[in-house]
Amino acid sequence: MQNRQWKLISRPVGLVKRSDFEFVATPVGEPGPGEVLVKVQYISLDPAMRGWLNDSPSYIPPVGLGEVMRAGGIGAVVASNAPSLAVGDTVTGLTGVQEYAIFNAGAINTLLMMKVDPQLAPLPRYLGALGLTGISAYFGLLDICAPKQGETVVVSGAAGAVGSVAGQIAKIKGCRVVGIAGGPEKCRYLVDELGFDAAIDYKNEDVRAGLEKHCPRGVDVYFDNVGGDILDLVLEQIARNARISICGAISQYNNLETVQGPKNYLSLLLNHARMEGFVVFDYAARTGEALKDLRGWVAEGKIKPREDVVEGIDTFPETLNKLFTGENFGKLVIKVAAA
Amino acid sequence: MQNRQWKLISRPVGLVKRSDFEFVATPVGEPGPGEVLVKVQYISLDPAMRGWLNDSPSYIPPVGLGEVMRAGGIGAVVASNAPSLAVGDTVTGLTGVQEYAIFNAGAINTLLMMKVDPQLAPLPRYLGALGLTGISAYFGLLDICAPKQGETVVVSGAAGAVGSVAGQIAKIKGCRVVGIAGGPEKCRYLVDELGFDAAIDYKNEDVRAGLEKHCPRGVDVYFDNVGGDILDLVLEQIARNARISICGAISQYNNLETVQGPKNYLSLLLNHARMEGFVVFDYAARTGEALKDLRGWVAEGKIKPREDVVEGIDTFPETLNKLFTGENFGKLVIKVAAA
Repeated sequence: MQNRQWKLISRPVGLVKRSDFEFVATPVGEPGPGEVLVKVQYISLDPAMRGWLNDSPSYIPPVGLGEVMRAGGIGAVVASNAPSLAVGDTVTGLTGVQEYAIFNAGAINTLLMMKVDPQLAPLPRYLGALGLTGISAYFGLLDICAPKQGETVVVSGAAGAVGSVAGQIAKIKGCRVVGIAGGPEKCRYLVDELGFDAAIDYKNEDVRAGLEKHCPRGVDVYFDNVGGDILDLVLEQIARNARISICGAISQYNNLETVQGPKNYLSLLLNHARMEGFVVFDYAARTGEALKDLRGWVAEGKIKPREDVVEGIDTFPETLNKLFTGENFGKLVIKVAAA
Repeated sequence: MQNRQWKLISRPVGLVKRSDFEFVATPVGEPGPGEVLVKVQYISLDPAMRGWLNDSPSYIPPVGLGEVMRAGGIGAVVASNAPSLAVGDTVTGLTGVQEYAIFNAGAINTLLMMKVDPQLAPLPRYLGALGLTGISAYFGLLDICAPKQGETVVVSGAAGAVGSVAGQIAKIKGCRVVGIAGGPEKCRYLVDELGFDAAIDYKNEDVRAGLEKHCPRGVDVYFDNVGGDILDLVLEQIARNARISICGAISQYNNLETVQGPKNYLSLLLNHARMEGFVVFDYAARTGEALKDLRGWVAEGKIKPREDVVEGIDTFPETLNKLFTGENFGKLVIKVAAA
């Protein structure tokens, strides 16, 4: 049995290219003691993956040259040498971009590996609103920003996986929510389907004017997925005691130049405001708390999850780039086996 | 009786020039009901004053063209129409850069106007460690950063008025304190006289190497007075859960170009760290709390105040620029009447 894998062979400059990887088939391994073999069904595409390709220190080591590309995923246990998992169980974890993954079952019930019930939700949702994506939105908004009822919350990358959940959680908390997204279709979706109070189409509208119009009392909370110019425009319009959650900076990840720092950061001084960053792994110990709320909100229809499924593991490099060109809509995943 | 005043006549570009102001003499005014006339003895020079000269929105309106330059100061009441203040009382407040100021005594016992005892400390100290400067250091360090015993605290502009007090407070709280200052004399002063654990001379040393050497476990708290490249270098070396207090950005205030944003701000994300700004007026309601501690620490010798007194109100433009060229050492004040 063969395992098709995407391995990194050179460090990308800007958007990834197919030639930065090799797509190889190797024999499927045997799970050792305490391990399970998982047939990967869906792979999660996340902006952070671009950072893992750079040879620079970060919260986890970069993907090494010659290594299988790191990624989250979900699949079924097809062989088990661990008492805690049986053949047929469905698990999420860092599968990598490959058809088969071997996990040490000792990591079960951590952020790195969760057993989930495939009957309760479509599998891709466990990579999205009911997975690390939802958990990121949950803590990045609630723990970092503590939004209060009636406050104005702005979310960038608002039609993306994390942003769309963060905005919906802010609505649940009684906030006025303004999304920033690219294109009229995404903006309509935010307002008409997700119940955002307003949306600003950064590709076709003046973002400064949009913020002035939709945030007349200033921005109390900003959940930032994009960085760059939009972060600076929001900094111009923060309210006193504003909180900014730095979840990501997708506009900067493929930069050929240095990262663009927020030139308006002194607005933090003028407004007694703060900017705080996080990664989801910071909250590993509190996963249960988030998932309990997220499951409830999805069940009640207060969070409407959306997944954007691309078929075929062979599409990996181009599919990853969709995150950075703004082509995805909701949680982007690859369905490993094409239809 | 004449009142010599410095009035703003054009908005400076870069460092202020004498020709941006006019130095005029006008008749001394009469205090109206509830007002007092104060003979100004010392004028405070603060980096924030440069910001007040720009025609841009801020926490207080810019100084208007034709208006007396705004500044803090201290002086003696020479005529009183207010029951709360008598002739001979000493008060601090926003005197402006002039020889005589009229205050509404209704503001007494606020950050804008405090009655002080000239027997307990030299007058310039009430503009420094026992005034807004000390209060800035106190809340900017303790409220924004909550340093814990054993943590590593870095202070930039460490030989300046606010930085030197912030560093000494961090020592009182049991932290390892590293100052960044310009020149060997200032660095020796920080270590030998103020008890800092180390100092980095940014004019003659490699700041990155200095931080690596003196902060082997990373920077837990950064009290930033300077912004610019030094902020970026510290961001490279923050520890997990670091707190950065944005007190000022003196390297940027005379910028002819746009402000330099911190290109390493994503270090906040990687380290679950935060950056928060403040101005001293945010803490108006808690002044007493700070002054009680500051008075005690000065009395016990745990804070060694230092004032840098320049004689003569006629020196104002050049004296203000000393803040930005790094020539001052401790709290910079003008003694209004030259010896």
